[in-house]
Amino acid sequence: MDEAVRPHWIAVDWGTTHLRAYAMDGQGGVLARGHGLGMGALSAGDAGASRQANFEAALLGAVEPWLSDRPVALIMCGMVGSRQGWCEAGYLPVPQSLFNLCEALAEVPAKDQRLTPFIVPGISQTDPYDVMRGEETQLAGYVSQASGANSTVSGRVCLPGTHAKWARVESGAVIHFSTAMTGELFDLITEHSILAHSVSDDALDSEAFRDSVLAAYHDPACLTEALFSVRAEGLLAGEDGVRARGRVSGLLVGAELAGAKLEPGEPVTLIGAPKLCVAYSEALAALGLDAALLDGEAMVLRGLSDIHAQLVERRAISA
Amino acid sequence: MDEAVRPHWIAVDWGTTHLRAYAMDGQGGVLARGHGLGMGALSAGDAGASRQANFEAALLGAVEPWLSDRPVALIMCGMVGSRQGWCEAGYLPVPQSLFNLCEALAEVPAKDQRLTPFIVPGISQTDPYDVMRGEETQLAGYVSQASGANSTVSGRVCLPGTHAKWARVESGAVIHFSTAMTGELFDLITEHSILAHSVSDDALDSEAFRDSVLAAYHDPACLTEALFSVRAEGLLAGEDGVRARGRVSGLLVGAELAGAKLEPGEPVTLIGAPKLCVAYSEALAALGLDAALLDGEAMVLRGLSDIHAQLVERRAISA
Repeated sequence: MDEAVRPHWIAVDWGTTHLRAYAMDGQGGVLARGHGLGMGALSAGDAGASRQANFEAALLGAVEPWLSDRPVALIMCGMVGSRQGWCEAGYLPVPQSLFNLCEALAEVPAKDQRLTPFIVPGISQTDPYDVMRGEETQLAGYVSQASGANSTVSGRVCLPGTHAKWARVESGAVIHFSTAMTGELFDLITEHSILAHSVSDDALDSEAFRDSVLAAYHDPACLTEALFSVRAEGLLAGEDGVRARGRVSGLLVGAELAGAKLEPGEPVTLIGAPKLCVAYSEALAALGLDAALLDGEAMVLRGLSDIHAQLVERRAISA
Repeated sequence: MDEAVRPHWIAVDWGTTHLRAYAMDGQGGVLARGHGLGMGALSAGDAGASRQANFEAALLGAVEPWLSDRPVALIMCGMVGSRQGWCEAGYLPVPQSLFNLCEALAEVPAKDQRLTPFIVPGISQTDPYDVMRGEETQLAGYVSQASGANSTVSGRVCLPGTHAKWARVESGAVIHFSTAMTGELFDLITEHSILAHSVSDDALDSEAFRDSVLAAYHDPACLTEALFSVRAEGLLAGEDGVRARGRVSGLLVGAELAGAKLEPGEPVTLIGAPKLCVAYSEALAALGLDAALLDGEAMVLRGLSDIHAQLVERRAISA
């Protein structure tokens, strides 16, 4: 019989589409993983107490095998802290030190006495208006890992995805950020627009991707014309879904990179799913820019671990 | 009892969403109107003969009260001539005189002997790839109306819509054109993206529209970031759906105008639905550019009337 998993604490990355739970040891290591429904499937329709019960049940489904009689701390980040989530965790304004997130943790009133859940706040900006929720924890992991004993990190960080974030970090603080709707537009265009039947389901021509990155980067005003041209090319020159997917993806990423207003030679740190980060690094390479790639899951766990360690120190909760 | 409508010929504008039929007298006047299903509702699933029967039935539903024993010519334009339509009408390449469309009419094999239907060809371009279908007939109407006895018209023409066309016309010919997916992206974003709940169903703040036109025109790379900012403003400053709709519309139109690469002071002719043309003329005015507005339906009928007159001349069909 397997020995029961008894984590020191539990890390939870709970976004719109997935709940990912990690049973953590005392040194930032992962003892076991669990998963469950994302916020999108839990928040629809219900309000108040019944919605909160849905969230607690989904969490228990993922972590119950790890629970004992002794209460355990859970540090959660992501859309679970939004207004439509389990419990609103608010936003900290920019400029914001990424070492400060622990100070604004929201304590979630769970019915199950074995759970002591907290949610990490998001970060907001008013000029121009923008919000992030979940990415602040990855950024906290990044500055924690990249900062030396006496220095803290600065630079441009991109977190590609449905809503790609571009953050300007100075001395361990986010001073400005923006959000490109690249992933969401890609999904809408390839699944619901007139291009849906022109684009392959998966494979992507990397030469078409690179050429389209350059075209949209150097002339972002051409974006929507160039998208329609993908459809026209299919009609006039024969359908090539793999090439079409490369073009749509490249055009959107190229326009995003133009919007990021990178300085010549400015290095970029990419944090996210490895496959997506590789695509972005190829796009940046086409522009002659270097990128460092960091795994998004590792950064979430590092950020949540630091926040948990601060919580233990400040509140003397059980570690 | 009403006198039966007996048209000299029938004009048909048959796009993706609507069939519009017009019983025409011999002088370009409209005796009566009919309507029916667009190509999108007729082409799905079926192929070959059964699809053709669907189209013929839809047409008869719109025009049958006007038919007598004597065959009548129908001149049709729009997506009815696409590969998924009733009968493919092909494309004429740019540069292309808009007085030549009659030469490439496709004759449709109708089962009902009372119908003698023809479809106007589209126009294609290979550098970059682009296609139009339906707009060529509006452009033909425009050059017919705007050309004097001894001169033909030149200028920039915009036909706003789901897929907005920008044509460069010289001496009555289309020499280059492009297609911005503005209308389709607006619908996808306001109905299916994270912005869906931030945007009002109808009313639009015209100051937000104008400001956003200018922002996207001067920095089209900001487009997707600015779209997400509409959502963030709703979260942080309170939802204002009328303002949000103005911003989304203005950002997309401003990016389209940047893509059109207009010369300073270059006048634009707008052809389309009056309300949409007014919005575009306001956007152009914000950039200091003048616009002439022409009704899209009037241009279709003028273009189809000219094509019919040429057909009568060349083939000696009954007028």
